[in-house]
Amino acid sequence: MSNEVRRLAVIGIGSGDPDQLTLAAVKAMRGTDVFFVLGKGREKDALTRLRRDMLAEHVPGPYRVVEAEDPWRDRSQEEPSGYAEAVHDWRRRRADVCERLIREELAPGGRGAFLVWGDPSLYDSTLAILEDIRARGEVTFEYEVIPGISSVSALAARHRVSLNRVGRPVHITPGRRLSEILPNDDGDVVVMLDAHESFRHLAGGGVWIYWGAYLGTPDEILIAGPLDEVSDRIRRVRAEARAAHGWIMDTYLLRLGPDAVDG
Amino acid sequence: MSNEVRRLAVIGIGSGDPDQLTLAAVKAMRGTDVFFVLGKGREKDALTRLRRDMLAEHVPGPYRVVEAEDPWRDRSQEEPSGYAEAVHDWRRRRADVCERLIREELAPGGRGAFLVWGDPSLYDSTLAILEDIRARGEVTFEYEVIPGISSVSALAARHRVSLNRVGRPVHITPGRRLSEILPNDDGDVVVMLDAHESFRHLAGGGVWIYWGAYLGTPDEILIAGPLDEVSDRIRRVRAEARAAHGWIMDTYLLRLGPDAVDG
Repeated sequence: MSNEVRRLAVIGIGSGDPDQLTLAAVKAMRGTDVFFVLGKGREKDALTRLRRDMLAEHVPGPYRVVEAEDPWRDRSQEEPSGYAEAVHDWRRRRADVCERLIREELAPGGRGAFLVWGDPSLYDSTLAILEDIRARGEVTFEYEVIPGISSVSALAARHRVSLNRVGRPVHITPGRRLSEILPNDDGDVVVMLDAHESFRHLAGGGVWIYWGAYLGTPDEILIAGPLDEVSDRIRRVRAEARAAHGWIMDTYLLRLGPDAVDG
Repeated sequence: MSNEVRRLAVIGIGSGDPDQLTLAAVKAMRGTDVFFVLGKGREKDALTRLRRDMLAEHVPGPYRVVEAEDPWRDRSQEEPSGYAEAVHDWRRRRADVCERLIREELAPGGRGAFLVWGDPSLYDSTLAILEDIRARGEVTFEYEVIPGISSVSALAARHRVSLNRVGRPVHITPGRRLSEILPNDDGDVVVMLDAHESFRHLAGGGVWIYWGAYLGTPDEILIAGPLDEVSDRIRRVRAEARAAHGWIMDTYLLRLGPDAVDG
């Protein structure tokens, strides 16, 4: 019977500002019986609280929130060779957890949701995990995706800049792939998931950086300017913020080339 | 006096689905006295109607909508050499129009807004135009940017795919720059503003395409599959839709490389 199908929504909830929720996200949240939250440590505490506040404000209820510990991810292996493998292994273990949650916590015919920071289509593994679970065939469900405001869009909006220049491409990359993208390009590069401050390896002039951390939250920090002039300040501010919060989530746009550094 | 400052909001309103509006966009719209709409032809008619419906639904009023004819853009000059120049010239003429609108239609102390399709940070000229007008110094204003769901995010959500693969970059490019990006990359490329169906030049296997038109609207069309198998169908469907509507707005994700064509 069709009403016995489990239905899931993967809902992008924006980069931290509760007002970045879309009307579609709010509607999907209001139709949800069970919210699944995976998290870990201090980052988890802060982000889980934000999610709970969103639910309290927008969903009259009744609903349940089911939390699970995010499987440990071995970040020591994140050199280029082992990175994809480590992520795939982590994703497999997350799929184990999510499959169990869906099977045990969501009744057939019920509606579940994953609330995803930013946009589910950008550097988030929820969609891949759900496809993995469907491929295993142990539990069946339908699902839809509600797009969200990514930290990339939030960064650009807060700095009031366009990601691209006229008629030109823009590249989005994890920090560890930045060096491969840069040498052949005078373009515009957004860097995400950069634990190693890859921008500090960019020497010389002609690079403009727009940096942001905790975008959309009360703790938001924005710094922009010629990289040569602001690089040290970003590193200092970033280290201080990370120490104060116990975690940091930041992203930045690099604008390269002869016409980059003129605002 | 600070209350005599003109205040503008550049509001991303999503790619076509009214429910892609964010709560922040709705709040900003409700605080707006004058909405500025630039448009042209049949595309203008359809999109202006969508915008008017959004305002009617979410803004109790009172507000004014000021429409202006979008200056003609010479698309015959869009070969690589003249493209940026043509766009800059078009932008300058748009800045003339917008400057006049702000000066004549928005009283000092008033609040105006530009409603931008998708996300103002991606292939939209409104931010650059406002900076141009500020630089001229003829009319002063403050402005803020409200990020929106881009057609890129909408495309990925409707196809339920991630834009990137694990730990890898994703590139966003205008159609006319696609050939420069492809040869050195086995990655993931989102193509926008492609009037020339650049995907048809990609021969051989190993390319997966996720294509979408009129995303988020009742006219939405989605086609996905190995490029070799669906290319002709996309071209036929695209031509038919364009003839029927008088305009088309489409975008697509290309997934390249040995592990692309396995879903």
